[in-house]
Amino acid sequence: MNMSRNDPPLYIRVHENDNVAIVVNSNGLTAGTEFPCGLVLKEHIPQGHKVALSDIAKGGNIVRYGEIIGYAVRDISRGCWIDESLVVLPEAPALASLPLATNPPPAMPPLEGYTFEGYRNADGSVGTRNLLGITTSVHCVAGVVDYVVQIIERQLLPRYPNVDGVVALNHLYGCGVAINAPAAVVPIRTIHNLALNANFGGEIMIVSLGCEKLQPERLLEGTPDVQTISLGDEDVVRLQDEKHLGFESMVNDILQVAERHLQRLNQRKRETVPASELIVGMQCGGSDAFSGVTANPAVGFASDLLVRCGATVMFSEVTEVRDAVHLLTPRVVSKEVGQRLLEEMAWYDNYLNMGQTDRSANPSPGNKKGGLANVVEKALGSIAKSGRSAIVEVLSAGQRPTKRGLIYAATPASDFVCGTQQMASGITLQVFTTGRGTPYGLAVIPVIKMATRNALADRWHDLMDINAGTIATGEETIEQVGWRLFELILDIASGRKKTWSDRWGIHNALSVFNPAPVT
Amino acid sequence: MNMSRNDPPLYIRVHENDNVAIVVNSNGLTAGTEFPCGLVLKEHIPQGHKVALSDIAKGGNIVRYGEIIGYAVRDISRGCWIDESLVVLPEAPALASLPLATNPPPAMPPLEGYTFEGYRNADGSVGTRNLLGITTSVHCVAGVVDYVVQIIERQLLPRYPNVDGVVALNHLYGCGVAINAPAAVVPIRTIHNLALNANFGGEIMIVSLGCEKLQPERLLEGTPDVQTISLGDEDVVRLQDEKHLGFESMVNDILQVAERHLQRLNQRKRETVPASELIVGMQCGGSDAFSGVTANPAVGFASDLLVRCGATVMFSEVTEVRDAVHLLTPRVVSKEVGQRLLEEMAWYDNYLNMGQTDRSANPSPGNKKGGLANVVEKALGSIAKSGRSAIVEVLSAGQRPTKRGLIYAATPASDFVCGTQQMASGITLQVFTTGRGTPYGLAVIPVIKMATRNALADRWHDLMDINAGTIATGEETIEQVGWRLFELILDIASGRKKTWSDRWGIHNALSVFNPAPVT
Repeated sequence: MNMSRNDPPLYIRVHENDNVAIVVNSNGLTAGTEFPCGLVLKEHIPQGHKVALSDIAKGGNIVRYGEIIGYAVRDISRGCWIDESLVVLPEAPALASLPLATNPPPAMPPLEGYTFEGYRNADGSVGTRNLLGITTSVHCVAGVVDYVVQIIERQLLPRYPNVDGVVALNHLYGCGVAINAPAAVVPIRTIHNLALNANFGGEIMIVSLGCEKLQPERLLEGTPDVQTISLGDEDVVRLQDEKHLGFESMVNDILQVAERHLQRLNQRKRETVPASELIVGMQCGGSDAFSGVTANPAVGFASDLLVRCGATVMFSEVTEVRDAVHLLTPRVVSKEVGQRLLEEMAWYDNYLNMGQTDRSANPSPGNKKGGLANVVEKALGSIAKSGRSAIVEVLSAGQRPTKRGLIYAATPASDFVCGTQQMASGITLQVFTTGRGTPYGLAVIPVIKMATRNALADRWHDLMDINAGTIATGEETIEQVGWRLFELILDIASGRKKTWSDRWGIHNALSVFNPAPVT
Repeated sequence: MNMSRNDPPLYIRVHENDNVAIVVNSNGLTAGTEFPCGLVLKEHIPQGHKVALSDIAKGGNIVRYGEIIGYAVRDISRGCWIDESLVVLPEAPALASLPLATNPPPAMPPLEGYTFEGYRNADGSVGTRNLLGITTSVHCVAGVVDYVVQIIERQLLPRYPNVDGVVALNHLYGCGVAINAPAAVVPIRTIHNLALNANFGGEIMIVSLGCEKLQPERLLEGTPDVQTISLGDEDVVRLQDEKHLGFESMVNDILQVAERHLQRLNQRKRETVPASELIVGMQCGGSDAFSGVTANPAVGFASDLLVRCGATVMFSEVTEVRDAVHLLTPRVVSKEVGQRLLEEMAWYDNYLNMGQTDRSANPSPGNKKGGLANVVEKALGSIAKSGRSAIVEVLSAGQRPTKRGLIYAATPASDFVCGTQQMASGITLQVFTTGRGTPYGLAVIPVIKMATRNALADRWHDLMDINAGTIATGEETIEQVGWRLFELILDIASGRKKTWSDRWGIHNALSVFNPAPVT
């Protein structure tokens, strides 16, 4: 599927107003290359990088996705390579003046009859896996919990064949932190809500040290915006309790509590449920210039299909939405939801400002190598994941939704932080698009990884689950890839297929967002 | 060794000016208990908690360690329990007016002839273990590296019997971070310097994704205050490199690089070296009121012994030093070192202030249960770990020392963050005192855990490596326990004895301090 040097030269122009396009061919295109439209390249342009479709004067608008992604640092001739150094970063959209809920898209026709095989829980939620999750109140206990997890895997799990696995919900929070700082609500809520992920079937247990700041009671109570988790004392193991006469005593106690939960989890069976029970997170990482024209639009199309099924879809990553937020504010269902969106953007502006940095800290070197000049271009490609549905709710980091449909869940853009936060917000499956490639995976939920380019899909044949590069070469349409992704989501959610990261068993650690100081 | 209910009542008064003492007896003491000195308890007082030795008027000074730890919130009668609610927190010492280098202690008599069996490295450093450390430039690769580590342990290590193990230096940094924010120097320097820990024998290798912000070149270059690490391209595996045709290809490449280093590490042999080659970190966690009178003074005594051997000793934990800093500033060797100490304190004051919190976020609930009323009392006990030597250097988080002797290495007080930062600063062994108990351990260096109380040492018989509780009961002196600890340090450093956490294989994750925003 890779284009060879002899393939015809190809570029992608996204919008009719664009004065730039990106080069599709795998090895880039050399100076002198002529396109059917008459455009001749004045210099070599790497794959994914931008070519000027017309002369652009110094200071002139550089337009992609029909939006200004920057200003020309000097005169740029038609056919030249617009590398990142030629693009002056525009100001971010001013939050005060944005139109709110001016154009919420009407509901698309419902999609009926799509189902998956899920685990229905007592609270009405539906999981895609059947896991024992061991919540920890503080990192101090991580070594002990890891030790116990190995014993559970070796000795207990074989006796409970309906249980898919056991996950230590280890994190670096819980003590040595400013637990009463205003921003501490984020990590506390996150750890609280992670325990409620539908894949754990409501079988919550906590391993605590005893002296930590995040006492189990506080973890269970969470923050003012969440519902307290009721948990009997028999499900909380405190290592410092006087009854524990040493390490082996602790281990045995945790094993006993774990086994009680395994017995109940083993009763869980997959059953056919409507696709509306899915909660899917959309994320991108290691993005390139193709992300916004292949994988992310296909994800957006699949997102719309899910929303039409009545399912819940979340997109996130504040710094990769901030510069395109003016395209989102008209799409929210109400002024209130719009205000919430602005609040989340403003919170992050302030957070970056306090750290004496700003949104230009994004994109990464690899993003740039992949053709993304700046965070504006990255954001315009990133929000394509949200499709065309109305945005019905906005969540702060780690909050759980109260509505179905398309939701903006504010999180950092960091892959593993976003993944952790979306899991706290309740996703039971994640779709992750990448142009540069990442082996990213999560232990709690399946992650479907989608390549933006054929070359990556080919090279990483045993890591990428689905390829959207065919959109760039014209082999498939956005709609076709979107439908393929939608079907794959149902297959993976049902356990009929397995993602590559799950087949290899490679998973990233939890990375709970803690914007407050450590002490 | 636990005191029973029938043991004679015992309290500890640290300093002749103290108007409070702490109760030693394991189960506390009941109202009516009479001490030989004539003091009669007016109410039940739990173990480690304070009794008023004289009447204290409302607003009067409450004095422990000869220092004001707070002011009485109301009149307190002799024999009453001074629980934390009765103690008003004083202001922290104003940094501007502190005496600098006014009283640096003269050098104590050198201790000659003490040695340990260590691994001498080409750069002159000496390790206590022989480990392959796999440095990672970004968390994205963690799943792959963990997978490879399992293969190395199973397939390669049996062929290299002189190598103690392999450690994935996974962390949550590297991308999705404000890498150009001023505070980003801390995590970058930390990851850079971790690779240089003497236990890795200079055999550095890096696994990188390719598109991350912390490019391997930048990791190797580090920050302006460190020396660039020279590393050939053959020791850097970038997963996104075109040569990798999928996951198995990446795994094989990492294995090949690892094996090359294992071959060299396998040549390393322990040899007898002077104790002056040790770099020992001192830390406390899960502290109680005994920490400052049993374990920490014994650690301080051992620290002085090490310094007298010419070794390097670090103590840390800014928030647990801040309120006792006036006792440290006279002890620094020069005004310059004193200024550096003040800078580190001021940096942290500002950091906490930005997060809308302050030093009162410390202590933890468990500290308080153990009798510590506030951070002042905790700090006075904490600095006892530093012994009586002059402070020759002050390091910012993750910096490496340029001097031998007693060093203040500024780190957060969080156990696992302090451990990670001290390892970056080069410690090859850590001593960790605890009153409440923690299973804390590190994969890179041995951690000797010392109990502050007999009851903990007895109960956690297979987690605590040494007990200082005998000081409280009068069974041993501070000097005796200090000498026992010193000998144990030499035994553990030599591999003659193993710590409990290493015997069980329970270790905490790296927790790199990142005071800058995530993006």
